[in-house]
Amino acid sequence: MNASNTTASAAERAQDAVNNERLQSAIAALAAFGGRDDGGVSRETLTPIDLAARRHLIDYARSLGCEVGIDDCANLFFRRAGTSDRTPVLTGSHADTQPVGGKLDGAYGVLAGLEVIAALNDAGIRTVRPIEVVAWTNEEGSRFGPGTMGSSAFVTPSLLDGYRQSVDKDGIVMGDALDAALKEVPDVPRRAMALPMEAYVELHIEQGPVLERANAALGVVTGIQSVRWYRVVCTGMAAHAGTTPMDERSDAMAAAMAIATQLYARADQEAAHNIRLTLGRWHVGPNSINTIPGEVEFTIDVRCVDAAVLDRFERFLQDVTSQHAWRGNITFENLFYRAPTAFPQPMLDLIEKACTRASDLAQRGAPKKVTSGAFHDAMYMADHCPTGMIFVPSKDGISHNAAEETAPADLYLGVQALAYTMVELANR
Amino acid sequence: MNASNTTASAAERAQDAVNNERLQSAIAALAAFGGRDDGGVSRETLTPIDLAARRHLIDYARSLGCEVGIDDCANLFFRRAGTSDRTPVLTGSHADTQPVGGKLDGAYGVLAGLEVIAALNDAGIRTVRPIEVVAWTNEEGSRFGPGTMGSSAFVTPSLLDGYRQSVDKDGIVMGDALDAALKEVPDVPRRAMALPMEAYVELHIEQGPVLERANAALGVVTGIQSVRWYRVVCTGMAAHAGTTPMDERSDAMAAAMAIATQLYARADQEAAHNIRLTLGRWHVGPNSINTIPGEVEFTIDVRCVDAAVLDRFERFLQDVTSQHAWRGNITFENLFYRAPTAFPQPMLDLIEKACTRASDLAQRGAPKKVTSGAFHDAMYMADHCPTGMIFVPSKDGISHNAAEETAPADLYLGVQALAYTMVELANR
Repeated sequence: MNASNTTASAAERAQDAVNNERLQSAIAALAAFGGRDDGGVSRETLTPIDLAARRHLIDYARSLGCEVGIDDCANLFFRRAGTSDRTPVLTGSHADTQPVGGKLDGAYGVLAGLEVIAALNDAGIRTVRPIEVVAWTNEEGSRFGPGTMGSSAFVTPSLLDGYRQSVDKDGIVMGDALDAALKEVPDVPRRAMALPMEAYVELHIEQGPVLERANAALGVVTGIQSVRWYRVVCTGMAAHAGTTPMDERSDAMAAAMAIATQLYARADQEAAHNIRLTLGRWHVGPNSINTIPGEVEFTIDVRCVDAAVLDRFERFLQDVTSQHAWRGNITFENLFYRAPTAFPQPMLDLIEKACTRASDLAQRGAPKKVTSGAFHDAMYMADHCPTGMIFVPSKDGISHNAAEETAPADLYLGVQALAYTMVELANR
Repeated sequence: MNASNTTASAAERAQDAVNNERLQSAIAALAAFGGRDDGGVSRETLTPIDLAARRHLIDYARSLGCEVGIDDCANLFFRRAGTSDRTPVLTGSHADTQPVGGKLDGAYGVLAGLEVIAALNDAGIRTVRPIEVVAWTNEEGSRFGPGTMGSSAFVTPSLLDGYRQSVDKDGIVMGDALDAALKEVPDVPRRAMALPMEAYVELHIEQGPVLERANAALGVVTGIQSVRWYRVVCTGMAAHAGTTPMDERSDAMAAAMAIATQLYARADQEAAHNIRLTLGRWHVGPNSINTIPGEVEFTIDVRCVDAAVLDRFERFLQDVTSQHAWRGNITFENLFYRAPTAFPQPMLDLIEKACTRASDLAQRGAPKKVTSGAFHDAMYMADHCPTGMIFVPSKDGISHNAAEETAPADLYLGVQALAYTMVELANR
């Protein structure tokens, strides 16, 4: 018997055994936890409804024969044994949502992993390595900042102490919420953080319009954009709108506007490099109709796969704020920096093969190579083990919204591609 | 006896009888009501501290021999009888402050009127017409909107019903606060609104830097700028900062910024007409660092003494919002409109004469003709009777601030000019 043929065949059989009806039912069942009349889902991390959803996932995974474990950050792991005790292959995503989110962002990746296990059961396939499915805690970061807590703490457990200090808007401390969540599942054994993994593959909705526009059902994610966040503070002098002549003003909004206009123009010049610039959060003081703004603060979110483009942007920001120093006191500071993530070529090759077979069988166009503009748990896992991601389209590119949607046929193809990839990895 | 000579002489004698020490004491005494450690005053309209200040003013006015009356909007009138019952000449301002204001904005004008009466008493001068001093209710509008309530309701009593519906941030209804204030002074007779007045003269701090810059102690206010307020609403589509390519965005902030930049440029072009443009209040939704703004609202406060300049500005605003319609749904609406106020020439001539004599005696530079960029009660009184205003300098142009300040010597000259003006008007 040719081992390589056997492996390939198992991956194909796993791919073909994915059950679309069961997948859609599982998505609908989890969406009921925090489900909203508008079709959206409100299931912020570690809320009572999130704890109920976790119990639902534990029960479902056990019904598929999985062993369940939980770590100190309440990340849930569902394990299907392999024929060996080699390091496992991991898939999954997160089950928490934004305050108002959709039923797919995160949940889809967790349920896809469980559907892969169900398909393997149906097809009677055993893999060499164990397959694990994870539901990361607090990917969204909307209740307790920062986001991607679970995966980053898994990779770097020393982060957890700091995360536990985070406080939500009602004054609840993250550490207390975490302890309560752990207490809710006395039947689930605790397992260590940072356990070695052979590979991590995350299936997720794109949350952008690129795949839909290209009419591609599947996306091979080559990497995650580098992100830099800045805060610009322009301090002028608040004064009466009626009594202060224009040439006597130190108008912080006029300064902010001049700077922002130059930043937008710069982004236009870098359009070929697919830079993305967002000036999303503004604070204007005193924010009164008849008072000249004395202080304007705004944030910059700038992303690109090419770190050199962002280096140039930062130098430009430095120059522009200096140019406008005559208008008042203008400062900027870096709030966050994340280098680009490039997934390894062998992983991209494998995922492309898996996506191509699924697309071909469904008579859909070739998978498209895309970069991720959003953060994902895979960003941190890429520091821990060979990692990859698969995207399915988002209708109109909408996410973090009740209107988030992906065609069921595309969701099905995504899980097919994941099943193939996982079995290939688990038999190596 | 030559009546005209007698009159001139009385005005001069009244001017010379103004007592600077008594004036400064009166300012300090009123500033104690709501006085702050930082030198500012917090005395919002109809608060307990404002009611206490009103009682203080009533007692002080009665000690000067005044008859006190109050109208349905709780405007307080202090009357010094004339030798006839012809229509009186009115001066005054307001005693309420911003949440954090100074000791001069408004209070100075009321106390200046009472000092004129004290000076007339000292000099043994009787005027033909009665002289009245008013403390208008709620000029500031910070607790109950809109501002200049007392003077506008005095001129147009039908406004009062609507004003009584205004609610402060604690849910207190203006009508109830007004009734409570009226009940606090059962010893003060009620008088009618809209009583005929021979003239109204208001003495006020400039609240801008023009007089200080010109080194002039006194300003002859030729009129009040026309004011227009607009709200611009730019509606785009909120979306993920990372996943949405630049050419797929409908970024409401980019639209607002492009419009605002053109408005500032337009104000530059109209600089010769002394237009004043303030984009003071901003609301950005959802106001999140990593979400493309889906809605941006901002206000425009634009002022000029020349209504034609503002008409041109409004047409430009119309054009600019249309030009940017491709970026999303962009609308604007007019929130407030006030035509320019021009004070009558005979009043300007009289005030200039009064100011010139006061400045000359103090060996200060000539009074400067200025326009008011701020609203004042005089704006509404100008619709009711011949009206004028006198300004004194504001240190660094600062007002609506604890740091508000005017040199005592300038405050003294202002009351001297007012005394002259009032006696001239009251003997006509």
